[in-house]
Amino acid sequence: MFHMARSNMHIILRLEITKKHVTFGEIATTISKSDGDLVAIDVIKESPDLSVRDVTVRVNNENHQKQIIDKVNTLTGVNIRHVSDRTFLVHLGGKIEVKSKLSIDNREQLSQVYTPEVARVSKAIDEDPMLAYNLTIKKNTVAVISDGTAVLGLGKIKPEAAMPVMEGKAMLFKQFANVDAFPLCLNANSTEEIIQTIKSLSPTFGGINLEDIASPQCFEIEQRLKEELDIPVFHDDQHGTAIVVLAGIFNALKLVEKELEDLKIVVCGIGAAGIAITKMLLNAGVKNVVGVDKEGAISKKDTYENKMWTWYAENTNPHNEQGSLSQVIEDADIFIGVSAAGVLKVDDVKKMAKDPIVFALANPNPEISPEEASPYVKVMATGRSDYPNQVNNVLCFPGIFRGVLDCRATSINEEMKLAASKAIASTISQDELNVDYIIPGVFNREVVPKIREAVIQAAYDTGVAQKV
Amino acid sequence: MFHMARSNMHIILRLEITKKHVTFGEIATTISKSDGDLVAIDVIKESPDLSVRDVTVRVNNENHQKQIIDKVNTLTGVNIRHVSDRTFLVHLGGKIEVKSKLSIDNREQLSQVYTPEVARVSKAIDEDPMLAYNLTIKKNTVAVISDGTAVLGLGKIKPEAAMPVMEGKAMLFKQFANVDAFPLCLNANSTEEIIQTIKSLSPTFGGINLEDIASPQCFEIEQRLKEELDIPVFHDDQHGTAIVVLAGIFNALKLVEKELEDLKIVVCGIGAAGIAITKMLLNAGVKNVVGVDKEGAISKKDTYENKMWTWYAENTNPHNEQGSLSQVIEDADIFIGVSAAGVLKVDDVKKMAKDPIVFALANPNPEISPEEASPYVKVMATGRSDYPNQVNNVLCFPGIFRGVLDCRATSINEEMKLAASKAIASTISQDELNVDYIIPGVFNREVVPKIREAVIQAAYDTGVAQKV
Repeated sequence: MFHMARSNMHIILRLEITKKHVTFGEIATTISKSDGDLVAIDVIKESPDLSVRDVTVRVNNENHQKQIIDKVNTLTGVNIRHVSDRTFLVHLGGKIEVKSKLSIDNREQLSQVYTPEVARVSKAIDEDPMLAYNLTIKKNTVAVISDGTAVLGLGKIKPEAAMPVMEGKAMLFKQFANVDAFPLCLNANSTEEIIQTIKSLSPTFGGINLEDIASPQCFEIEQRLKEELDIPVFHDDQHGTAIVVLAGIFNALKLVEKELEDLKIVVCGIGAAGIAITKMLLNAGVKNVVGVDKEGAISKKDTYENKMWTWYAENTNPHNEQGSLSQVIEDADIFIGVSAAGVLKVDDVKKMAKDPIVFALANPNPEISPEEASPYVKVMATGRSDYPNQVNNVLCFPGIFRGVLDCRATSINEEMKLAASKAIASTISQDELNVDYIIPGVFNREVVPKIREAVIQAAYDTGVAQKV
Repeated sequence: MFHMARSNMHIILRLEITKKHVTFGEIATTISKSDGDLVAIDVIKESPDLSVRDVTVRVNNENHQKQIIDKVNTLTGVNIRHVSDRTFLVHLGGKIEVKSKLSIDNREQLSQVYTPEVARVSKAIDEDPMLAYNLTIKKNTVAVISDGTAVLGLGKIKPEAAMPVMEGKAMLFKQFANVDAFPLCLNANSTEEIIQTIKSLSPTFGGINLEDIASPQCFEIEQRLKEELDIPVFHDDQHGTAIVVLAGIFNALKLVEKELEDLKIVVCGIGAAGIAITKMLLNAGVKNVVGVDKEGAISKKDTYENKMWTWYAENTNPHNEQGSLSQVIEDADIFIGVSAAGVLKVDDVKKMAKDPIVFALANPNPEISPEEASPYVKVMATGRSDYPNQVNNVLCFPGIFRGVLDCRATSINEEMKLAASKAIASTISQDELNVDYIIPGVFNREVVPKIREAVIQAAYDTGVAQKV
């Protein structure tokens, strides 16, 4: 919805025209009178009574688009079947394709890439399965898999409807890290079915990127797959977010001159991302994390149905703090919100320790607006591209999978994730570092190679790299 | 194994060299003395005792390659880890890649193909799932799926090992029909698991091409998926072969001036392909098909454990012929072999009716060699590219999927398969038709558009085309 006014904005209206009620001339006149520039007309279907046409119209902006549509809607006998704007146009026919690396123009080429000679390659891999990394796409290919249960802000949608997001992700994999990623949206009825499906289809791939799967199912799915597969499995909504947040914290701490082990950090929203962030914080050395959800702080004094919350209570909140966010925020050094718009108040920020750091990551509207918070915080980050310090997973997943593919890692462990965080943080030099620049921009070309190198080193150090 | 002598043939030897036993100079000398041209040396691993090196050598031909390898093998302290020849080299890193149709170079593009704008596209598809055909890769994408249980002549191999074949198939889809095909090799433990996995992953695709799945599991898998999915499912080993065979028969019959309903056809080898061929023959109007397997003719007088054979007995062999191939071949007009090398004897051919037609499709060696058979047959076809009239599935699957994707067919029914056969046959004009040219060559550019058109027409005629 961020279109700017521009004269090259086109929309396509698919019109169903009942001929006895209206002529195409009347429709064209209506569009022209609204200052719409009629650029093209394509006949989709024609019958004696009915005509279906795609009408391409140049418009000035989104408001103008709406005016034209409203005018056309006033005409009797015209039904607007759908409107395609620029975003829809770039999606026509999908955003990715499968290409051959070689052309097959003669018998000899055919017999090399297919029968009969391909049989020798198959035989070699059957005898030594590690050769799949040399002789098939496994070497460079990741599956991007969702069941469509937690897509962006839309919640649960049909698997087909999740495809544009996964295709977009595949594009980013290619563009940023030259990883071949293929999107698969699953129509599965249970956690077990998702696990089984992914296990079944895994031989093709060198890694699995799980995406937009609802909590708490995402935990079991990832955990089981990590145990039962010998390729890396990475739920990006959890770990991608956590890795980038931690990168931001590493840099923010340099500005406030505090140490990880001395911090009190409040994490608000104890779902997939909140739990993953907390785990990384603890692994990195933070001692005092207090998790808050709708019912207040999570502590050992309560019992929880949610298994992950039980884990959370046992492993965080060493001082057993209880109560609402407004209560436990007292003296916190860092607030990390992965919850909902507006839950953090100015009065809450005022209660924080000196030089407060606020990560307000709710999308599209953060837990507190940067405008409100700025007088009281030292460093602030959000999930949005229109403020400084955007926490964006695009900073992480291309580099981390580039790394694991290149060293044929069997998993992505805590050491590798921590290494990725440090690598992201390291792309900002001491000279560049300031409160508005603790996280690199998504188009920063240093990010992927730095993550790659760090992840490979950590994979070798921890013995999960298979490449000799 | 059909390499011709040529000076640009390279092989790569990966050598493990125990330094105390041999120097690299000695190895280089050995290769040179065998007339091998040492082109490049890459150090893979180096330690005080051991060195691993990839040595690229230009050789004259496969014999020469063997001589060099034998010589290197005589050296103490050298272990040849593996040899990559040209076929292996074209497979390095896999044969296909996933490409973006658009580049993402700035924020605006990023926000259109990914968050936040992609959410509007997902929402539109969620409200009207048919839009997946417009706005995602479903429009043009087919899954090529195998479980690796019946790959080429290799039988059951590991799923990873089947990938080169499936990647090759994906290349052919793209090259011949601009279909995006993605290979998936399944690691599944049961028929039910394969069915469930394919159902789960189906939303991404506009069609499913099953490949190299063992009989009889392939029948249930295909049948169930056809019933439970709303996209076309096509087991190429069955129907692709059957469609091309029937195309050949249509043309062969023009040469011998016989009609389908008058024929006696013997099908030898009642597995996946044999059954599919028989079904198509019956659907096309043939009255008298006699199926023969190792135990002789299949007839109603026997009972069978194999459910497909029970079906076969009930629906073929109207005169209840019994006995061996040599017995039931008597007076047959056509022999179709999808069995094993050498099972059809010259004496058998002599017993056939006037102007015998022989399809000897066993690979790599046919049921009877064309040399032996030619004095006695009128028309002969094989599965081999080095004889006339090659029955090759490549003639069928690209066009048939191009057709079903373009009309958004929900299935591939008998009428569509028959239309595809006729379309293939029609690419050879009456003028061109002769005993050595009843089936077009795989590089014939008319084949795909003709199949496409015929399949789309048949899909509309039978009500399975969804595109308005």
